[in-house]
Amino acid sequence: MAVSPPAVQSLEQTGRGLLEQAQARVRPRLRHQVEARLVQNRQEVGYHLGLLDEQGRPSAAGAGKAVRPALCFAAAQTVGSAAEVAGAAAVAVQLVHDFSLAHDDIIDGDQTRRHRPAVWAAFGTSAGVLAGDALLGLAFTTLADADYDPAALAQLAETVVELVEGEAEDVAFEQRQTVRPSEYTAMATAKTGALMGCACALGALAGGGEESRVRLLRAFGRHLGVAFQVSDDLLGIYGQEQVTGKPVGSDIATRKKTLPVLAALASETPAGRELADLYSWTGELTPTAVERAAELVAQAGGVRAARQAVDQELKLAHAALAEADPAPVGHRELLALAHLLTHREH
Amino acid sequence: MAVSPPAVQSLEQTGRGLLEQAQARVRPRLRHQVEARLVQNRQEVGYHLGLLDEQGRPSAAGAGKAVRPALCFAAAQTVGSAAEVAGAAAVAVQLVHDFSLAHDDIIDGDQTRRHRPAVWAAFGTSAGVLAGDALLGLAFTTLADADYDPAALAQLAETVVELVEGEAEDVAFEQRQTVRPSEYTAMATAKTGALMGCACALGALAGGGEESRVRLLRAFGRHLGVAFQVSDDLLGIYGQEQVTGKPVGSDIATRKKTLPVLAALASETPAGRELADLYSWTGELTPTAVERAAELVAQAGGVRAARQAVDQELKLAHAALAEADPAPVGHRELLALAHLLTHREH
Repeated sequence: MAVSPPAVQSLEQTGRGLLEQAQARVRPRLRHQVEARLVQNRQEVGYHLGLLDEQGRPSAAGAGKAVRPALCFAAAQTVGSAAEVAGAAAVAVQLVHDFSLAHDDIIDGDQTRRHRPAVWAAFGTSAGVLAGDALLGLAFTTLADADYDPAALAQLAETVVELVEGEAEDVAFEQRQTVRPSEYTAMATAKTGALMGCACALGALAGGGEESRVRLLRAFGRHLGVAFQVSDDLLGIYGQEQVTGKPVGSDIATRKKTLPVLAALASETPAGRELADLYSWTGELTPTAVERAAELVAQAGGVRAARQAVDQELKLAHAALAEADPAPVGHRELLALAHLLTHREH
Repeated sequence: MAVSPPAVQSLEQTGRGLLEQAQARVRPRLRHQVEARLVQNRQEVGYHLGLLDEQGRPSAAGAGKAVRPALCFAAAQTVGSAAEVAGAAAVAVQLVHDFSLAHDDIIDGDQTRRHRPAVWAAFGTSAGVLAGDALLGLAFTTLADADYDPAALAQLAETVVELVEGEAEDVAFEQRQTVRPSEYTAMATAKTGALMGCACALGALAGGGEESRVRLLRAFGRHLGVAFQVSDDLLGIYGQEQVTGKPVGSDIATRKKTLPVLAALASETPAGRELADLYSWTGELTPTAVERAAELVAQAGGVRAARQAVDQELKLAHAALAEADPAPVGHRELLALAHLLTHREH
């Protein structure tokens, strides 16, 4: 593990503090929404959100990291407002994120979410579908109850459509022989960038920011979302289990076509061709084969290409943020969050 | 088949004409939403909405009856406005209805919808989940793009949460030994009444109706929704296949706990007890057993109780409508639709 210089450590600590603060701010609001609005879906939704355990008892396990709420609170401060005005917006984007996770786990057949059984694995597929639907409904009731510019609801609605489009494209990629790296980043923009951009835009709208700043903060969040996704792709191959919660190389074992892999496959190098052979083989990959594939991705330039994509998206994110004439506190918070989300290997 | 008196025939013809007109009004708008907003989910959503066939070719098969849009257009006229102002609201409620059908068919394992394979049966469960999600997202973008009172979006969001609660309760009933008839009507209010009430409320809001009329029209739609659901329950037992699209007695064969059955089971009559025996038996019911069960439901007073419930809900619906001081054209249209939806055995 590389030793980080003090300035970087401080950014990372700031980022972690912001996530903790965002979790503390949204948690009581999430609980209130679940208790006030749900009866039939309360247990499943409460479980998925990390408010209840599988038996319906209060629990703190399985709560989300609150990345999107933290972006939302910081964005409100970036336009010179107090973070607290963005409370309903922060809850709404977290609920949309949790809706997408609940349905994604069904679609991908993932049994585990946040170190616990996924909601569908714990309560059945029907309950998982309905829990996701209830989460999405709650996102809109939460935002509709807040006294925001009507543009906030329109942006949330557009984001949901874009997010679902990105998910469908991700599913479609798994059936395709070849996917170009540029197609992948377009998919990641829809699947991950859209909601992070929405979190920033809604924070800025809640803070009373003018349209041009809302648009620039949205662009910041969209680029950051892609940078985060590609960083996550690298962790999915090279990350340690204690960081990712998944076994080393798990994305290779399931033959996920993430950006480092796609760049390696497109490289026309001997390593890329050997990787293509491994990926086209339909049997289960041994741990040795997974390790070999991870080496081949690096040899074929996949890691370098992914790091370049992260840097490029971060550069675009920072440029948009600077153009938004950010107030100092919010600016520093968004930079800290951007750092934390894209340097998780440190 | 009973011969209906001329006045009733005329109401029924008016109702059918309104459905055709509503279909013609929403169809191009649905097509526009799908083409403008979807790429990845276009084929599945287009198929589910009856705009495309399974191969993605234009098709008219499988379109919905447009009951909720028809209510929405009529409600706008009830507050003295032109029907056309309610166009976006009508599309939004149809999209929410189609969202719920797409996910319901997955949950219930129903292979067939509108005489074609259900979207999940045609394209797979993942595609069905995502198609439903996309439909719900489109409902909100459609309404957000319209120039309505912000209360419209809040009502749609609350309706979605209530609808999903009703669906979860319906699923829960299947696991329970006993369900009281009053619990059933509460479930039907959430699952079916909420969206019909929302259709009427949004039509009235789109037409510029004042809050008290919006509230009364919402109450009309909610009671009508329950009356419609219970009428449908009778058709699910006694309806002919050419009317229902399902085999005679299909709800008995799948042991659905609908109101006529629940009332019969709660009757403490010999017929009710014999029905309970048939329902508690876990093997497949023969056609003779299905026929016997249908007789027992009637003998135990289940049909009478269901008809009373329909009459009671219709009375409440008509009272709310009368109190809303309806303009004549809209009034007549809502009465015609209410008649059509609750007298489908004629």
